[in-house]
Amino acid sequence: MKIHNFSAGPSILAPEVFQEAAQAVVNFQDTGLSLLEMSHRSKEFDAVLNEAISLVNELLELPDGFKAIFVSGGASTQFALAPMNLLPQNGKAAYINTGTWADKAIKEAKAFGNIDVVASSKEDNYTHIPKNYSVPSDAAFFHITSNNTVFGTQFRNMPETSVPLVVDMSSDIFSYKVDMEKIGLIYAGAQKNMGPAGTTLIVVREDLLGKVDRHIPSMFDYRIHIKKNSAYNTPPVFPIYVSMLNLRWVKKNGGIKAMEARSIARSEMIYSEVDRNPLFRGTTAVEDRSRMNATFVLNEKYQSLENDFLEVCKNAGISGIKGHRSVGGFRASMYNAMELDSVQVLVDVMKDFEERKG
Amino acid sequence: MKIHNFSAGPSILAPEVFQEAAQAVVNFQDTGLSLLEMSHRSKEFDAVLNEAISLVNELLELPDGFKAIFVSGGASTQFALAPMNLLPQNGKAAYINTGTWADKAIKEAKAFGNIDVVASSKEDNYTHIPKNYSVPSDAAFFHITSNNTVFGTQFRNMPETSVPLVVDMSSDIFSYKVDMEKIGLIYAGAQKNMGPAGTTLIVVREDLLGKVDRHIPSMFDYRIHIKKNSAYNTPPVFPIYVSMLNLRWVKKNGGIKAMEARSIARSEMIYSEVDRNPLFRGTTAVEDRSRMNATFVLNEKYQSLENDFLEVCKNAGISGIKGHRSVGGFRASMYNAMELDSVQVLVDVMKDFEERKG
Repeated sequence: MKIHNFSAGPSILAPEVFQEAAQAVVNFQDTGLSLLEMSHRSKEFDAVLNEAISLVNELLELPDGFKAIFVSGGASTQFALAPMNLLPQNGKAAYINTGTWADKAIKEAKAFGNIDVVASSKEDNYTHIPKNYSVPSDAAFFHITSNNTVFGTQFRNMPETSVPLVVDMSSDIFSYKVDMEKIGLIYAGAQKNMGPAGTTLIVVREDLLGKVDRHIPSMFDYRIHIKKNSAYNTPPVFPIYVSMLNLRWVKKNGGIKAMEARSIARSEMIYSEVDRNPLFRGTTAVEDRSRMNATFVLNEKYQSLENDFLEVCKNAGISGIKGHRSVGGFRASMYNAMELDSVQVLVDVMKDFEERKG
Repeated sequence: MKIHNFSAGPSILAPEVFQEAAQAVVNFQDTGLSLLEMSHRSKEFDAVLNEAISLVNELLELPDGFKAIFVSGGASTQFALAPMNLLPQNGKAAYINTGTWADKAIKEAKAFGNIDVVASSKEDNYTHIPKNYSVPSDAAFFHITSNNTVFGTQFRNMPETSVPLVVDMSSDIFSYKVDMEKIGLIYAGAQKNMGPAGTTLIVVREDLLGKVDRHIPSMFDYRIHIKKNSAYNTPPVFPIYVSMLNLRWVKKNGGIKAMEARSIARSEMIYSEVDRNPLFRGTTAVEDRSRMNATFVLNEKYQSLENDFLEVCKNAGISGIKGHRSVGGFRASMYNAMELDSVQVLVDVMKDFEERKG
């Protein structure tokens, strides 16, 4: 049975990416060696790294002055490293609290300067993205989490501010075009739209670096990884390789424009059903709905059917649909590699459930 | 043609490990999902993590009070994190400078306290391990690099000191029994004796933690990873999985006792030939020779033959034998998974080279 993987992350990648990645584990490019046992300084891996970086440049249309690097760890590491690299000792940074990950980013940043939380939807259990706030013009940057995987909300547009944006795009990178003129830094853990767990992509406006006085350990200094082309030390070879394969797949399938169209089609399909089906309702403000993670619950009258619904999903090959404990109910995570057919399977299950239980 | 992989790292793992890892990339344990797209909170990956940690405990015979965790990044990250977690602000730590990596560890540590370099063989281009030195009894720890991959030296025994040892065992972990009574912390990047690049094993005496005042970002705080059983955030799933497979292989093949016997057999075979063959000589003090990385050069009279020798090695399927630029000549890295047969192939090539060129 085909599994339809709606997992919030680590998450679905294209089947051909898995096939090619598996081949590299036993014999990489007919070298007779596994990619896992090859030097990270070999010409073969050097080519992988260069292609990965070049695909990032091409797909995101990075203007001059931006650098892309792959580092180890996840976005949680960048919660500390972004302010460590960008926020002067007595400087100020603005943050907006739109979910669990934004909240954690704020906590980690507080060790590095004055953190001004300009708005928060925490008291409403993060069901919407705050709208009316102002970002102080003396802030070194304004940090946002562009998509909130746990709660299923997403900034529809990057905010307009006079200061550079620092954006955690872990869960929606490569799914729509970003106006890079607004950006100071983007970081994205690989394991949703880009690749497997174990590497994080950083895209940074290089002129923002080198303005802090604090000591930065070499491994945490973006400038060192830029200078060494992501190979200052042994990088996470396999996660970077698989990310490269997936970026190739994104390019081959039409690039970011096509990925955006796919994400619109998928999310319209699921939200239409959530809104139509009398058994279910969405959990967030309609205008802030995420195209990557659709969160929905059973209406009060049907709440005792939660386990039944999970069971019928399982029987249809739908995996990873259980909602996060902070929201409950269900969450359909639909990252770049997900085909519309899989969303159709879920919608059909919802319709059938209505017919039998409604 | 079979490739004999003498690469210094990332490096050889057992063929069955590559096969099983490749299978997991396409379909993990018949779940119909790739391991790369599965939640790190799934029961399947939870079992992987638990087995990996349990194998570390068993193979290293960790006494009570020690904890093993898998983190992201490499040993270079730990150059900063070990002192960040263990060295009080105005405290002192002792280091010994036995090679490139020890030197880097010292540089990173200096940001966190007073670093007393008790001995160094840097002026002799690290051809030996210093012997007569004393470690101050008020040091928080004594840091050593147990094996020096670049120069081919190794501590034959862990030093006797009154303070806990902090040991970078990236290149010789699981190759001999360590007296854990001497140990405060061991860190080891995976990509030599343990697995692929992308994760680092930390083994720490838990009572040494929590004694520093400085702010430690969550992702860099060993206590948080211990508390969250290496899953505070999304860990590097695939590198940890392959490390677990390789530790299973170590156990199945006799554990650390057998790995030590294998490493003695391999290193005796290559060094015997280096000492016998009039074309070659070793580059280090005989008593400090590494069992993992044998460094050797052509004698002066034959030095113009270096490229010839690399060529005949290549033709025999010998890969990764070129020495590091700081030493020149050749380096045969022989980690846990290397079979004696591969060393025999190298020795045969050396004998044949002597017959034809000597």
